[in-house]
Amino acid sequence: MNADIITIGDEILIGQITDTNSQWIAERLNLAGFNIRQITSVGDDKRQIFNILNDISDKSDLIIITGGLGPTEDDITKQTLADYFETKLVISQKILKDIKSFVETRGLDLNERNRKQAEVPESCKLIRNFNGTAPAMWFEKDNTVYISLPAVPFEMKAIMSNSIMPLLKKRFQTPFVVHKTVLTYGLPESGLAEILSDWESNLDEKIKLAYLPSPERIRLRLSIICKDKKKAEKLIDYEILKLQKIISKAIFGYGDLFLQDIIGQILKNNKKTVSVAESCTGGKISHLITSVEGSSEYFKGGIIAYSNEIKINQLNVPEDVIEHYGAVSKEVVEFMAKGQREKFNTDYAVAVSGIAGPGGGTLDKPVGTTWIAVASNNKIIAKKYTFGKMRDINIRIAASKALDMLRKLMSDLNCLF
Amino acid sequence: MNADIITIGDEILIGQITDTNSQWIAERLNLAGFNIRQITSVGDDKRQIFNILNDISDKSDLIIITGGLGPTEDDITKQTLADYFETKLVISQKILKDIKSFVETRGLDLNERNRKQAEVPESCKLIRNFNGTAPAMWFEKDNTVYISLPAVPFEMKAIMSNSIMPLLKKRFQTPFVVHKTVLTYGLPESGLAEILSDWESNLDEKIKLAYLPSPERIRLRLSIICKDKKKAEKLIDYEILKLQKIISKAIFGYGDLFLQDIIGQILKNNKKTVSVAESCTGGKISHLITSVEGSSEYFKGGIIAYSNEIKINQLNVPEDVIEHYGAVSKEVVEFMAKGQREKFNTDYAVAVSGIAGPGGGTLDKPVGTTWIAVASNNKIIAKKYTFGKMRDINIRIAASKALDMLRKLMSDLNCLF
Repeated sequence: MNADIITIGDEILIGQITDTNSQWIAERLNLAGFNIRQITSVGDDKRQIFNILNDISDKSDLIIITGGLGPTEDDITKQTLADYFETKLVISQKILKDIKSFVETRGLDLNERNRKQAEVPESCKLIRNFNGTAPAMWFEKDNTVYISLPAVPFEMKAIMSNSIMPLLKKRFQTPFVVHKTVLTYGLPESGLAEILSDWESNLDEKIKLAYLPSPERIRLRLSIICKDKKKAEKLIDYEILKLQKIISKAIFGYGDLFLQDIIGQILKNNKKTVSVAESCTGGKISHLITSVEGSSEYFKGGIIAYSNEIKINQLNVPEDVIEHYGAVSKEVVEFMAKGQREKFNTDYAVAVSGIAGPGGGTLDKPVGTTWIAVASNNKIIAKKYTFGKMRDINIRIAASKALDMLRKLMSDLNCLF
Repeated sequence: MNADIITIGDEILIGQITDTNSQWIAERLNLAGFNIRQITSVGDDKRQIFNILNDISDKSDLIIITGGLGPTEDDITKQTLADYFETKLVISQKILKDIKSFVETRGLDLNERNRKQAEVPESCKLIRNFNGTAPAMWFEKDNTVYISLPAVPFEMKAIMSNSIMPLLKKRFQTPFVVHKTVLTYGLPESGLAEILSDWESNLDEKIKLAYLPSPERIRLRLSIICKDKKKAEKLIDYEILKLQKIISKAIFGYGDLFLQDIIGQILKNNKKTVSVAESCTGGKISHLITSVEGSSEYFKGGIIAYSNEIKINQLNVPEDVIEHYGAVSKEVVEFMAKGQREKFNTDYAVAVSGIAGPGGGTLDKPVGTTWIAVASNNKIIAKKYTFGKMRDINIRIAASKALDMLRKLMSDLNCLF
């Protein structure tokens, strides 16, 4: 089954925003067994939209369109699709009700522009949007399915995951794609590829392997396109078993989880609590931990000790230790972890102090120098890292390293590995 | 002058990577006065590349192509372009020398794959790549320029900035593009559009207006394509002046800044400090504030008071106030802001307590209910918000609302607006 993705918006063509929607959609469709033929971005322009639809309509079975559904003058996708499918716009009372309840729960009044969002092409099937005012629209013509979605990523993702994907499964007979994702952390991509080169070259030839690297995790995705789901799963499980023997400590989970999810599971299962003391990461670790639903069960809170004054007054780091060793040091970060754990009365604590940059580096301690400590009731382990020169990346990497050290401490693995 | 961008790579179509190259290229071309007609991603497939080139060659004056120039089997762009332009691949001694020096400075030997990189279509103009082994290629046919670039972002960017852009300026007579971006917060897109509808309809017809919404800010981008740069700037400034009179409180800046940047500027200019007490936002506000370079000048830190125990013990919120009003209440959030400000001895403090979801809601206080308070030495202002049901979005919106209330408090604007 061929699929095309079209993203509509002048802001994409002038380079004002990066189109991340098409990547997200492509990944989902690919995993559902579709063959993505082409991704096309065009402007908010009726002629351009007609051109691309005319060009691809006989080449694809499924065309996903995002963008141009907003309430402003430049949003013309709805009218354009109504013209393309030779239908007219009519008010949908059901959608109007949705919109009304959406704006009212936000304490706002329904205005004329909101009301216009309830005008929809008569011939399409409507799919509700619980996170915004523009519904999704499903058209069919000459056996091709056209789906128009709002471009706001969280609205689009919710509609795709909750409504569109199940509907596509019913509508199309796509081959099974069996895939499993192994989540790793700690080994860089090139190192991982080297360690795994033997395993990779002996991989069953039906299995496709993809490395998906990011600062937060490297995912190894194994997939098979097949008819016999059970057999394919068995084949993949067998390869993963071999993988576990090679990089057991680096594997932190399977599927689509992050370190903070796994940490949450471990803490919850063991009825333990954690708190954090953050300097250079400035709240990033807390933010990651609390991004997990139900984290209030095991996360009590933390102290952002950005200035030395706070490290001294709130975390009981001795002033002379800071003076002698500097705020970015083994000693300070160990005191921070200890002070944090005691002050918040938690089973574990994590502490970070570093130079995120771009200023603040010295010859001894260049930008990127970061100390991380993790503490339990009977252990404090600290490790020094040297990251790069980019502030945002340094903060992201430091937060992930800290979470991984906590994971290893809790799992009795070597934190310094 | 019309321009098209084509990105080539199976990894884009299966959603393995986000194509950020086309955004970067689009922005540069747009600022250089080109009209980007379409951005298209296709796979490493000769037929697909021929199709798209055939389709767009008479529609665009300039076609920028990235990807498929690597040394592996699946990289077929070079051979495909040679076939398309009916020429053959020949070894370029000049490029071979470049490649040799490139691999040798990295302590490597020239291998067969590297050597193949020096095979280039005979009819094209070559543009050197000092950061990798694949040169860029410039073709011309029927008055259209085709440029093929490597997809590795830093290689592509260096070639574009240092070589291609100057060459394009010589080759094409493009108009000036003048644009300014107004940054707003607080009014939803539909409300903003309604308030601005008169201004918008009276806008000078040469000016193009774009709304660029996100949970963190709504950007209004005004642009003119023109010959007289000074005159265009004056025209845009005049319209922005009118805009300022209509939505002065919602405008927080110009260009490409966020609320945390502006807050940093205000605090720095006034030599003031701030700290934060976060419950449901769990570190997000601190993370935003510290994402700004130099924030240690005005940000002392904060307390993540996720559990009630921490609110009571660390922020001196009276236990009976929590019991009586609940943790998500005006009273508690006011105590939090006050306690935070005093404890960290800062000029300002921000406090947030809410129900991020998806659990924890009640009939009285549904998921999304959030109280935010901002405090100075003589004022505490608290406001209740009701957001939606999605945890991550609630956290993002609450953090932005809190920053905006702080901005308004510091600028003597009405925080409750």
